[in-house]
Amino acid sequence: MLTPLALPATAFIDPQGNNRAAIAEVVAHVAQCIVTHLSGAAQHPPVPEVTAVPAIAIPDLPTPDRDLLNTLDAYLATAMNPANPGYLGHMDPMPTTFSILGDWVVSALNNNMLSVEMSPIFSRLEPLVMGEIARLFGLGDRAGGVLVSGGSLANLQAIAVARNAKLDTLTHGLAPLPRSPVIFASAVAHTSIKKAAMLLGLGTAGVIEIPTQANSQMNADALRAAIATSLANGQQPFAVVATAGTTVTGSIDPLPEIAAIAQEFDLWFHVDAAYGGALMFSDTHRDRLRGIEQADSVTFNPQKWLYVTKTCASVLFRDMAVLHDHFRIAAPYMNREADWHNLGEFTVQGTRHPDILKLWLSLQHLGKQGCAHLIDASFDLTETFVAAVRQRPYLTLASEPAMNLVCFRGCPSWLPAAQWDGWNADLQATLCRQGSFFLSLPHYRQHNWLKAVLLNPFTTIAHIEALFQAIDAFAHATKP
Amino acid sequence: MLTPLALPATAFIDPQGNNRAAIAEVVAHVAQCIVTHLSGAAQHPPVPEVTAVPAIAIPDLPTPDRDLLNTLDAYLATAMNPANPGYLGHMDPMPTTFSILGDWVVSALNNNMLSVEMSPIFSRLEPLVMGEIARLFGLGDRAGGVLVSGGSLANLQAIAVARNAKLDTLTHGLAPLPRSPVIFASAVAHTSIKKAAMLLGLGTAGVIEIPTQANSQMNADALRAAIATSLANGQQPFAVVATAGTTVTGSIDPLPEIAAIAQEFDLWFHVDAAYGGALMFSDTHRDRLRGIEQADSVTFNPQKWLYVTKTCASVLFRDMAVLHDHFRIAAPYMNREADWHNLGEFTVQGTRHPDILKLWLSLQHLGKQGCAHLIDASFDLTETFVAAVRQRPYLTLASEPAMNLVCFRGCPSWLPAAQWDGWNADLQATLCRQGSFFLSLPHYRQHNWLKAVLLNPFTTIAHIEALFQAIDAFAHATKP
Repeated sequence: MLTPLALPATAFIDPQGNNRAAIAEVVAHVAQCIVTHLSGAAQHPPVPEVTAVPAIAIPDLPTPDRDLLNTLDAYLATAMNPANPGYLGHMDPMPTTFSILGDWVVSALNNNMLSVEMSPIFSRLEPLVMGEIARLFGLGDRAGGVLVSGGSLANLQAIAVARNAKLDTLTHGLAPLPRSPVIFASAVAHTSIKKAAMLLGLGTAGVIEIPTQANSQMNADALRAAIATSLANGQQPFAVVATAGTTVTGSIDPLPEIAAIAQEFDLWFHVDAAYGGALMFSDTHRDRLRGIEQADSVTFNPQKWLYVTKTCASVLFRDMAVLHDHFRIAAPYMNREADWHNLGEFTVQGTRHPDILKLWLSLQHLGKQGCAHLIDASFDLTETFVAAVRQRPYLTLASEPAMNLVCFRGCPSWLPAAQWDGWNADLQATLCRQGSFFLSLPHYRQHNWLKAVLLNPFTTIAHIEALFQAIDAFAHATKP
Repeated sequence: MLTPLALPATAFIDPQGNNRAAIAEVVAHVAQCIVTHLSGAAQHPPVPEVTAVPAIAIPDLPTPDRDLLNTLDAYLATAMNPANPGYLGHMDPMPTTFSILGDWVVSALNNNMLSVEMSPIFSRLEPLVMGEIARLFGLGDRAGGVLVSGGSLANLQAIAVARNAKLDTLTHGLAPLPRSPVIFASAVAHTSIKKAAMLLGLGTAGVIEIPTQANSQMNADALRAAIATSLANGQQPFAVVATAGTTVTGSIDPLPEIAAIAQEFDLWFHVDAAYGGALMFSDTHRDRLRGIEQADSVTFNPQKWLYVTKTCASVLFRDMAVLHDHFRIAAPYMNREADWHNLGEFTVQGTRHPDILKLWLSLQHLGKQGCAHLIDASFDLTETFVAAVRQRPYLTLASEPAMNLVCFRGCPSWLPAAQWDGWNADLQATLCRQGSFFLSLPHYRQHNWLKAVLLNPFTTIAHIEALFQAIDAFAHATKP
């Protein structure tokens, strides 16, 4: 053991138990800070202001435990607070209790999803649970999936596999291709599709944007026309990305039509259901995703509408053999287990935090029925919210909500239209400053909009009424 | 609030405090499980056997808290156990206490590094701390860095920026390039370099492997020759990757020579110091990384030799402006803050777990001197280990250790050389089965080797003596 003087007594948890009492004390302190803060989250604003940032200099000498513990309240108070029932701005939920606890266990164990011997139980658990989820999506008996650290990586991995499978680029890259490879996605697809195209060597221009209908859904006729034009221009189309739950309006592209077009042109069919995939857990609303069972790959993020603490994102494949044939790069320094894979060879990451325990504990704690209840209840709340928008002539919806996300804006007739963007920005900032409600302010169709995601299970009809009273008060004050 | 019957009472932490007592109870239970397990980690084997995997089926109904809590011990007992002082197999440390606690806070808050408004304090903290670290690496006043979820992503992002900056591929991709882009790395560079090349559209063949010297370091003359050959073959070299801490032997490439060659040929100079970067914290050993201050980018993973729980990996850039000019893809749905960046636009990820708090708490708790002490102490232990190998004629070193990593193998003269690979594999498995020591078994230079990483601060000279007694006993039993 190291010289005691050089390190704080609690630097590590002594595996022989010699500092157990001191460790138990700091652990209890931190646990209590967290429980106190989150049990009072309704009293903290949804998005606090940060007025001062601590001075940053790595100290030479160790900092006493007590001094560090005393800084925790400042971090808690200046963090985003999605547990406040007035937090409505993003697809970022308050997390389930058992997902938090699962992550605590994993942080303490410091296992590594790189290989089976670095995470003996978690490397076995992940393929089993992901197989169950892939089957729930109707992807069949050869389907499965992997967890990755965020939805951008899920989309990246799906399109990488699509490119390698369709264009044979794993070994020799894009240089030998006679034509420029391109993919298709709607104009409102997530920016991670463009980022993936940039990383994968297609360039951002390698994503051909398909116009949307009035409801922010991809126009299937326009997709067919764009593929024909691309082929005529001598490009090499290889994949179509549909979205189930767009970022700004929560819209779902027409999956069956897109699946048919992808099949007709022999294109990989990827569905970015990062947000909407949770609908598969609801008997009432599952049908909104009809067509997803025809996908070659699906991005699905339990970190969103399944309330698992971040990150917990996944990419599912209809046939897991594609990862062996068109993605895997072997790591010769790792031991092999006969029946289990070293998952570092099968994802865009190598070393990876085990996100499977928090997902698995949370799914078991809620059960499918608990998940369905959360989803169904947020649809009910959305109806109330939409009705409140429709009742106000000075508010307008961006599209018909397809899930628990409402995008709307003020178009106050008493002001010139050129002032409406500023009006909406002022409204959003005013609500934020008042400290009870947080709507986000997306830029969409060349304008500012307001976005509400009805995710928080503690948000009630009374909260929505109070929000619209605040909106009415703001509007009234802007009248001449 | 939702119908109480449909969800467990502890499904979420009620932000009005209505289930505080029940939450405090499950939190205390989990905290105690973890402290008990880790305080007794020396009594659990370094890498436990997993003999049974639980049946996996997502239940329809919620699972009672007590039933789930009762499963935790099984997960703890079948996880990799790097806290055991006999765990020597990989670059995976036991984590510092305050990195665990920082991760607990972050898991509970569920903030998102995608944007400033989703992580108001953490999005400010990260650039400040990473700027400090970049300056510690001598990268200058325009330097900084971002955290990403694992070293493979750090290498991916560095080479993506290099490709875009040198070949202007952000918008139009690789198709317009007249020549095949290639990069150079030593034959023993990490597999994530090949994975990055595959993802980035170079193909795995786009990594030109440079032979190593006897000490597993890149041969600088061979690098110069390979660049010349590549140019003569009509390829387009754009980057050189040097390694500071190779996976199998912990070797450090000759950084100053490689820097000079990169400059001569106008190539991006990336240093993969995922493991070795921690040496910058030691006054005694910093000089081993001389030349790293000339890098255009550096991968550095505090999750390794700085003992921060996973994941905590970073990529540093000499000039952060390259991320603006050659990487950033704007997300129009996010608010902007005047002085702070939405980091989702600047990393390969979008949504990202805030890893900065655990890093910042841990650095403060240990101080630079504490970090230096850990590094220096592991060098001392390595000397003892190397001496024990040298004392045994039937053992041989793969290379002269440059840090706290020893790669060696048995070449028992009493057996035919064709049996040595099997002998080493048997030895590794025997030690594992005995439950006191874990060495890993990398495949290297067409043979099986044994690898020890002297990371665990609770490993003592007595442990090393016991390990070599066990090795001697195994060897003796194989004599005729």
